[in-house]
Amino acid sequence: MSTGEQDVGSQAIALPAVPLTLEGSAVLHQMFRFRWSQWRSQGAEVRGRITSQAQQALAEMEGAGSALFSMFGHKGDLLFVHFRKDFEALNQAQLALHQLDVMEYLEPAVSYVSVIELGLYESTVKLYRELVGRGVVPHSPEWNESVEEAMKRQREAMHVRLFPAIPEGRYISFYPMDRKRGEEKNWYTLPIEERGRQMDLHGQIGRRYAGKVQQIISGSIGLDDWEWGVDLFADDPVIFKKLIYEMRFDEVSGVFSNFGAFYMGLRCASSELATLLGGTTPKALARTQPAAPSGQPGRPGRPQA
Amino acid sequence: MSTGEQDVGSQAIALPAVPLTLEGSAVLHQMFRFRWSQWRSQGAEVRGRITSQAQQALAEMEGAGSALFSMFGHKGDLLFVHFRKDFEALNQAQLALHQLDVMEYLEPAVSYVSVIELGLYESTVKLYRELVGRGVVPHSPEWNESVEEAMKRQREAMHVRLFPAIPEGRYISFYPMDRKRGEEKNWYTLPIEERGRQMDLHGQIGRRYAGKVQQIISGSIGLDDWEWGVDLFADDPVIFKKLIYEMRFDEVSGVFSNFGAFYMGLRCASSELATLLGGTTPKALARTQPAAPSGQPGRPGRPQA
Amino acid sequence: MSTGEQDVGSQAIALPAVPLTLEGSAVLHQMFRFRWSQWRSQGAEVRGRITSQAQQALAEMEGAGSALFSMFGHKGDLLFVHFRKDFEALNQAQLALHQLDVMEYLEPAVSYVSVIELGLYESTVKLYRELVGRGVVPHSPEWNESVEEAMKRQREAMHVRLFPAIPEGRYISFYPMDRKRGEEKNWYTLPIEERGRQMDLHGQIGRRYAGKVQQIISGSIGLDDWEWGVDLFADDPVIFKKLIYEMRFDEVSGVFSNFGAFYMGLRCASSELATLLGGTTPKALARTQPAAPSGQPGRPGRPQA
Amino acid sequence: MSTGEQDVGSQAIALPAVPLTLEGSAVLHQMFRFRWSQWRSQGAEVRGRITSQAQQALAEMEGAGSALFSMFGHKGDLLFVHFRKDFEALNQAQLALHQLDVMEYLEPAVSYVSVIELGLYESTVKLYRELVGRGVVPHSPEWNESVEEAMKRQREAMHVRLFPAIPEGRYISFYPMDRKRGEEKNWYTLPIEERGRQMDLHGQIGRRYAGKVQQIISGSIGLDDWEWGVDLFADDPVIFKKLIYEMRFDEVSGVFSNFGAFYMGLRCASSELATLLGGTTPKALARTQPAAPSGQPGRPGRPQA
Amino acid sequence: MSTGEQDVGSQAIALPAVPLTLEGSAVLHQMFRFRWSQWRSQGAEVRGRITSQAQQALAEMEGAGSALFSMFGHKGDLLFVHFRKDFEALNQAQLALHQLDVMEYLEPAVSYVSVIELGLYESTVKLYRELVGRGVVPHSPEWNESVEEAMKRQREAMHVRLFPAIPEGRYISFYPMDRKRGEEKNWYTLPIEERGRQMDLHGQIGRRYAGKVQQIISGSIGLDDWEWGVDLFADDPVIFKKLIYEMRFDEVSGVFSNFGAFYMGLRCASSELATLLGGTTPKALARTQPAAPSGQPGRPGRPQA
Repeated sequence: MSTGEQDVGSQAIALPAVPLTLEGSAVLHQMFRFRWSQWRSQGAEVRGRITSQAQQALAEMEGAGSALFSMFGHKGDLLFVHFRKDFEALNQAQLALHQLDVMEYLEPAVSYVSVIELGLYESTVKLYRELVGRGVVPHSPEWNESVEEAMKRQREAMHVRLFPAIPEGRYISFYPMDRKRGEEKNWYTLPIEERGRQMDLHGQIGRRYAGKVQQIISGSIGLDDWEWGVDLFADDPVIFKKLIYEMRFDEVSGVFSNFGAFYMGLRCASSELATLLGGTTPKALARTQPAAPSGQPGRPGRPQA
Repeated sequence: MSTGEQDVGSQAIALPAVPLTLEGSAVLHQMFRFRWSQWRSQGAEVRGRITSQAQQALAEMEGAGSALFSMFGHKGDLLFVHFRKDFEALNQAQLALHQLDVMEYLEPAVSYVSVIELGLYESTVKLYRELVGRGVVPHSPEWNESVEEAMKRQREAMHVRLFPAIPEGRYISFYPMDRKRGEEKNWYTLPIEERGRQMDLHGQIGRRYAGKVQQIISGSIGLDDWEWGVDLFADDPVIFKKLIYEMRFDEVSGVFSNFGAFYMGLRCASSELATLLGGTTPKALARTQPAAPSGQPGRPGRPQA
Repeated sequence: MSTGEQDVGSQAIALPAVPLTLEGSAVLHQMFRFRWSQWRSQGAEVRGRITSQAQQALAEMEGAGSALFSMFGHKGDLLFVHFRKDFEALNQAQLALHQLDVMEYLEPAVSYVSVIELGLYESTVKLYRELVGRGVVPHSPEWNESVEEAMKRQREAMHVRLFPAIPEGRYISFYPMDRKRGEEKNWYTLPIEERGRQMDLHGQIGRRYAGKVQQIISGSIGLDDWEWGVDLFADDPVIFKKLIYEMRFDEVSGVFSNFGAFYMGLRCASSELATLLGGTTPKALARTQPAAPSGQPGRPGRPQA
Repeated sequence: MSTGEQDVGSQAIALPAVPLTLEGSAVLHQMFRFRWSQWRSQGAEVRGRITSQAQQALAEMEGAGSALFSMFGHKGDLLFVHFRKDFEALNQAQLALHQLDVMEYLEPAVSYVSVIELGLYESTVKLYRELVGRGVVPHSPEWNESVEEAMKRQREAMHVRLFPAIPEGRYISFYPMDRKRGEEKNWYTLPIEERGRQMDLHGQIGRRYAGKVQQIISGSIGLDDWEWGVDLFADDPVIFKKLIYEMRFDEVSGVFSNFGAFYMGLRCASSELATLLGGTTPKALARTQPAAPSGQPGRPGRPQA
Repeated sequence: MSTGEQDVGSQAIALPAVPLTLEGSAVLHQMFRFRWSQWRSQGAEVRGRITSQAQQALAEMEGAGSALFSMFGHKGDLLFVHFRKDFEALNQAQLALHQLDVMEYLEPAVSYVSVIELGLYESTVKLYRELVGRGVVPHSPEWNESVEEAMKRQREAMHVRLFPAIPEGRYISFYPMDRKRGEEKNWYTLPIEERGRQMDLHGQIGRRYAGKVQQIISGSIGLDDWEWGVDLFADDPVIFKKLIYEMRFDEVSGVFSNFGAFYMGLRCASSELATLLGGTTPKALARTQPAAPSGQPGRPGRPQA
């Protein structure tokens, strides 16, 4: 049972192993510690001026696809999430943040770099089967052309999910993860149909949480230390635990996934920044998005952790 | 022996894998290093003023569900444990602490975020069997309604255990833990009945320590880096070792659990804060709770580590 | 071969799995880095005053069961070992140390919290067999009474080994360790007789080093991150290597143990503190203990690493 | 199935296990955090002078084989990559950098030391087979002479790939990696022909990305903590993800590789240094190299991650 | 296949498992970061005075068995290697270094404590076989006497290799390592003859590098975190990679070894210290030792990594 061929009937032609993906916004998570004592040692006027500058900058950043969260625990005090159209804009967002005076009180703790990704197991298997059925040779010009054409259609159809706004749930849970490559249990040596089957069952769990939690999956192979980043947004953080616990009993999560650290935060709108820097929990965001877009429960991004 | 179906007789209908849980207080553990030299370099008057402010704040926090401990070893000097009604109150507790002048001498070292959790293996299996026996389809509206109704009853019955006071044992031992997901030994692929059986044996060990140790289990999947946090409270810390060592020989702990770091502390009431900051071990707490609530030995929270 | 029953004949009644232990002194190891440059930048008078205060405090601490070591390598410069009658006294020792002026030059690096433990595999198996033979039900009142009575006798007989003085060997080697809980090789699922057999062979190795090395075992389950701490004391540190290397070829160490970091130091009596803080290796301790107590080779604590 | 002989027919003479390699430039990656607040607290004139000195030095370093990148995330702000003719020149590059005034604002975070390596599985197997076929004894003088002669020819033929210029792609992805030496899956115990076969399939994936990504492989066994370092250069960083994800489904990567941290950066020419230190994303490099050298798609260095 | 008996014929009497070793110099590796900016901010006169003091001290240390290296990468800037006649002298060397003014600019990063060790698999097996053949009981007085006598002879014969000068190769590669104790692959449960056979093949690889690389093996069980430390010295650091890579394909390294971090440095004689602290690569050492001692290729210490 080494690689890629197990469970494939002897008559069947093995499909290529790699599922197709679509990529959207470049994503950066930045966790900072806030030096509260140093901050509090400043006079009210200095703090006022710095807060005012930061608030204005954050308001602009929100317009460009950023959000701020007040974190729980010692891993950081502030979490910035940036969605940008590409990595050049993301680099600029990172550099711009450092030009704010408030950064003198912020100490970089952790970060995560990724790109929004839609994994297309179902349509990949369908497309590969059709092409193989027609006798098209994988990676031949005809194959590549058919794939690129299908991807182009999907990319257009899914534009909103590839370049989403940051969901407005009051709480965020972010964590990176890998698919396991153990000596016996190795996700990458399962046939694509088997992976597709498991991902489908996995997705069914997520859909049961439609309207309660929104999920954004981003890919980070080659960009950061884990293979994927997962963002969950909900108004009740206990839902994070419920959802991920339930998923831990399916094969994709329970057998074939390793998880990194988990970061939890509470949303802070730019208009509430002065509240937060004054030491008080920010008020809830005024909602502009429907909690669960009609017809697409739980999206953007179907829970897939 | 891959996932979920082993040991289930061919006639039996497999029960859903996920045990039901109830959630209560939001919990934050905060470990800080105390900068003793910097503190001692301050004049007596400054220290007095700062201590006084901290003492008053701690007294208020105790009323809201917090407790302070003097830690052993280098992982931290002070441990704050906060139980709050929800995560918004927890966020406020964390922010409020940073507004105290004593924080200039405290350096965040570690923390843990979780929510008090009661795992209900026994009643879950009973309920699932009954529903499956009646032919109710898992996750159907009827199923969900029956589950929600049962949970509602339990939630009311167990309100005190879901939102407990912090036990008054002189010593605390806190540690996070995971159930193992190894290539061969994977807790999450055992059938729910087998997990229930092991948890029951596990609980029997805990009950033998009734009156000597109190345990609070909190869940942290999606909230922090491990799956659960365990708090033990006792007047004799050697009991921590006895209890956990005995549990290590049962299957749940010995075969199916991984443990994180262990943090040990000695309780310091707000009234003893000046003693502690003066470099002397605080006196024991005046007890207000019975050591072992009648009829519920060892609770709140049955030992389950 | 999953848990607890292997190698047990079908007629035999399985003995309870948990070996009895006795506990003695509460133990704290503290590793500090010494800020040599900052220290050397002080004038001779200041250093003299601080050294004098520290020397007097150390002399008192030695009387109460502490010892100081000059460490090798970067993990720390100074190692304090404290043996105390209970954890309250240990907490006080830790707090008191921080009140010394020399602490301004010491930076906490690592520590370890534990309690001196005598593992009693041999007498446990004998006692369990006798009780099971008499038909006494494990954990019944009669069982518990018999066990407590036996433990009481042992506790008195072994009082000196439970509350020992710190051995006077010129060198110390300290390390924490766990018994392995791998997917195949799991110490905790071996039957108690098999564990007892292996521990006996293990102890035989240790006894060959009687008179050359003294060992103190302390337990730390529930108190710190590993299951046990091991202190070795010898006049020739090469003996540490010889002993542990030989043990690595027995089953207990080689197959069933994981080891943490190793810390090595050279003893510094309080009377030699000024020498050490002046940058010179302290002179050897004037011996007050026999190197190997007659009749008890290698003790206190039989080598068991 | 322990070591080296599996899958080798009983008549066949086993070939030596070690593939031949060629080495070229000595390589150093240096990741630094930039102390933005400290930098911004300096006056414009001071910053101007320091920038000017750094810019001139960077221009010279670029001529000698260095490049600078603006990093994403918290692992560093600036990444220097140095290719030098040997390790003495590399040592000098490292020392010279520290003499710049801008280094007061740079904090070393991570680094990686390696040497450009061309692995020659295909020609090794061909050469070994020929020598073994002629009855030449491995490691005999005749064997060594033939090998050295073949290597000499290759070294000359591949000089440009052994001492390449740093590719000009706008983005870099760097990561270290090992071949797995698990208890069951151990790359180093596979026969050389099997490793050669897998490497060939692996290389075929890389060649499909010719013109889109350039790869430099460097070896670091004995020089740094992992066995190899991989540098990828591309104008679109999403290609990094696509390439490495596709490779993860082949045996070399998916079964037999472990990966370290991933570092991503955006190229900053010396002429753009003032832009970057002013907080703005540097403009793209004026290209001097063809994106894909004719006849050698994807090189220097065939993708092999 | 659990422990120690596999592959031993039923008639054969198993030899004791522990190979004999000889110990020589106590060894300390110290890696420091150099605070270049702080150093460069000092005036030329101050730097001159400090350099001068350090240079004179280093010259004396060289006479006593120390050497300095300029490190590659961020793990440290300066590496001191100390060989001393015993651990008391080593402690003194460590303390003395901290009394130099240059230490204000040096920050301890890593270190390694060990003792030069010659492993004697071949003569151990020969001796054990002879003793067992004569019916001598392991660990009996007669056995111990014969072993001690043989060791005494070897200790004298190998005095130069036990207390060597630091080899004069221009580059050093240092790394710690363990023998693997996996659940299936466990070095310590192989019979001594099998370990001896593998070590012999391992040594044959090393001998092919005679004259190009010199190796010193030191043992550190009980002294530091890994079981052995390996120092390689060569004029061409690419040889480090070639040697260790070739060894990775034998069983001892490839199947039964785990490796720690690798540290690489370039030798800096005391006479070149001013050059190095001035930011320039030091000139090569004037050689006083033959590159490969006649008759003992590759020694002191046969490559054994």
